[in-house]
Amino acid sequence: MNPTNFHFNPKDASLRERAFKVVPSGMTGHLDASVLPQGYPQYFERGQGCHLWDVDGRKFIDLMCSWGPNLLGYRHPTIEQAVQRQQAIGDCLNGPTPRFVELAEQFVERSAHADWVMFQKNGTDATTVCVTIARAATGKRKILVATSAYHGADPWCTPRPAGVTAEDRAHLIYYTFNDLQSLQQAVDQAGSDLAGIMVSGFKHDMAQKLEMPTQAFANSVREHSSKAGAALILDEVRTGYRLHKGGSWEPLGIRPDLCAWSKAIANGYALSAVTGVDSLRDAATHIFTTGSFWAGGVAMAAAIATLEVTDQIDLVKHLELIGNHFRQGIEKQAAGHGFKVNQSGPVQMPLILFEDDKDFSKGLKFCAHALSNGAYLHPKHNMFLCLAHTMDDIDLVLQATDKAFQALSQSSLR
Amino acid sequence: MNPTNFHFNPKDASLRERAFKVVPSGMTGHLDASVLPQGYPQYFERGQGCHLWDVDGRKFIDLMCSWGPNLLGYRHPTIEQAVQRQQAIGDCLNGPTPRFVELAEQFVERSAHADWVMFQKNGTDATTVCVTIARAATGKRKILVATSAYHGADPWCTPRPAGVTAEDRAHLIYYTFNDLQSLQQAVDQAGSDLAGIMVSGFKHDMAQKLEMPTQAFANSVREHSSKAGAALILDEVRTGYRLHKGGSWEPLGIRPDLCAWSKAIANGYALSAVTGVDSLRDAATHIFTTGSFWAGGVAMAAAIATLEVTDQIDLVKHLELIGNHFRQGIEKQAAGHGFKVNQSGPVQMPLILFEDDKDFSKGLKFCAHALSNGAYLHPKHNMFLCLAHTMDDIDLVLQATDKAFQALSQSSLR
Repeated sequence: MNPTNFHFNPKDASLRERAFKVVPSGMTGHLDASVLPQGYPQYFERGQGCHLWDVDGRKFIDLMCSWGPNLLGYRHPTIEQAVQRQQAIGDCLNGPTPRFVELAEQFVERSAHADWVMFQKNGTDATTVCVTIARAATGKRKILVATSAYHGADPWCTPRPAGVTAEDRAHLIYYTFNDLQSLQQAVDQAGSDLAGIMVSGFKHDMAQKLEMPTQAFANSVREHSSKAGAALILDEVRTGYRLHKGGSWEPLGIRPDLCAWSKAIANGYALSAVTGVDSLRDAATHIFTTGSFWAGGVAMAAAIATLEVTDQIDLVKHLELIGNHFRQGIEKQAAGHGFKVNQSGPVQMPLILFEDDKDFSKGLKFCAHALSNGAYLHPKHNMFLCLAHTMDDIDLVLQATDKAFQALSQSSLR
Repeated sequence: MNPTNFHFNPKDASLRERAFKVVPSGMTGHLDASVLPQGYPQYFERGQGCHLWDVDGRKFIDLMCSWGPNLLGYRHPTIEQAVQRQQAIGDCLNGPTPRFVELAEQFVERSAHADWVMFQKNGTDATTVCVTIARAATGKRKILVATSAYHGADPWCTPRPAGVTAEDRAHLIYYTFNDLQSLQQAVDQAGSDLAGIMVSGFKHDMAQKLEMPTQAFANSVREHSSKAGAALILDEVRTGYRLHKGGSWEPLGIRPDLCAWSKAIANGYALSAVTGVDSLRDAATHIFTTGSFWAGGVAMAAAIATLEVTDQIDLVKHLELIGNHFRQGIEKQAAGHGFKVNQSGPVQMPLILFEDDKDFSKGLKFCAHALSNGAYLHPKHNMFLCLAHTMDDIDLVLQATDKAFQALSQSSLR
């Protein structure tokens, strides 16, 4: 019944078999395809624009954008040219290249709250640095985080408890996103020991309906932070550049004290960043955090080029345009085929959940059928749109989803 | 008196001034040049082979090798060709490329103890993953680490306490490297809660004499780990590939259960890895650790090419040859100029400390003079040699150090 069963993708199957011998379970982390619907490839050969090719030569219009990093299109010529220019002279040296200063200046200029910036490699590096700076600045320990929010994969924040000790999270206090009362309770619990309140750009917990922050919640987070002299830490790793150029809470008029960035900022090259306000500059100086490759010039050249491209266009407007087109198309198709779907989150980072689908069987089948018709969707995680997606590409995706709805309507999952 | 005072390096000075406004203290982490002798550049323009050029056009023979990553020479043609080939098709996609499997197979084949491998970006990622796997596997919590050893810059291991809570290190117990009694005491203190014993390839604590592990110490670490059912974790981040291809404790006949790799494994491209034995494979599967860029194909292509190059030559022999030449040259020069120096560590990762130099004033002046004569040394941290260093390059370095000894002998620091 499923034409994309991976047994029909011999190269992918062969690589999985080989990997199983030399990598625990064959693949670990968020890119593990064994949790995806049948037919999804684990291994990819290449990417260009909004297209991906798997190792068996199947071509997809990609709505995951490498889980965020692909902001402008795979192998965007401006980025690749900047990368090649830098690579031809030097990347990882005994100190940074001039790109470090150029990027820092441009980054601070464009990030609405930022007076300074530090660079790392992983999103987890950035969130961990934020927590450390907040503690160093305040001399306090408690960090408030939303229940189920993803802030990285270090022991203090990884979503799976194996290997984590109670002490790794001794100073975390949990609140419910958008729930003022639970936030107040968490603040009360922290008492005089509150170092920071961490928030995501919006609530984007795996396999749950996405939620934009309410104005009242954003205001309250800001007020509690300011009142306690604690840092408002915005985790912009997933949301950065896609919602608002200066920071995803700019439309709410709320600015963080510290902000963690990664994923999209260098269009796929490994880079993360922490921006902060002047009052936290000293603390940022006093902590010690570093990495062998953090000053590498190539990723910074890519990040500068990413800013250049996004300066020349209204990226958010484009993403909203195609995102609305996609959302309306799905809405119409679902209704036409008699399905109730819940679409949530900002249109440029869409999530489609079927109602009455607790085991995700509908969502999984729907995505498997869409994949076999050339569209790479995700059944549980928010997706990502990019500059390379055209209205025509979205129309092609909608042709694939229409066939997927149709197949689903003819199956036992109707 | 000092011809390389940075005020004479106007481009470097200008970049430092600009950075000071937008980056805490201008530069953070181990690449901060403000702690280096006067005249040392902060910013670099390019690298080629064993040579670096700073932004003011000064050319140096580099003995730091970007603090380890430069194993074969900056811009080694085999590595750069492999990188360009991969970059032309795709780097960070929705899953790994075939390079992931190819590298995993080759890595496991060459690492003497390894049955499996996982990839990350930072050395700190790798050491943290090792600790997490050890705890997940044993259900125990205590990790033994050597006093003053550097295992990364996360809160659990960073050498500076700002922003770190007591709980971040609640389950670390310290021992003295090469001290069997202190190791025994630490094991006793852990009691029935011992998850792992972490060791560096050799003792390479900043600003201290380097020490190779004694056979008795290595044996004891292995025996204690095995007896307690705890993991012997080798932190090979700094030492990897320079001491022994299969692992730096191979000459001692002692194999770890987990090993953290980074720095040199992709000749400067951002990559780290954890290898482990079969009995820890399940635990490695159960922890959740991941990063946005960890499956990127370009760094893996660079790592495969690095293995290809090191398969064709006896890298360690070359490094020992030039390292011995350097050590003997320094020994002879120091004696000739009437200085007592202490050279320690393996010759391929040399450290030169002056005796009677508690404030490092001799070492700092010595390095400043060597720099002004074209050799980039480090006064306190172990240095690194690479494949691109020829005997002629070492002779040029020795010409620079001879002038440095001479200048020092004429100064008040005699």
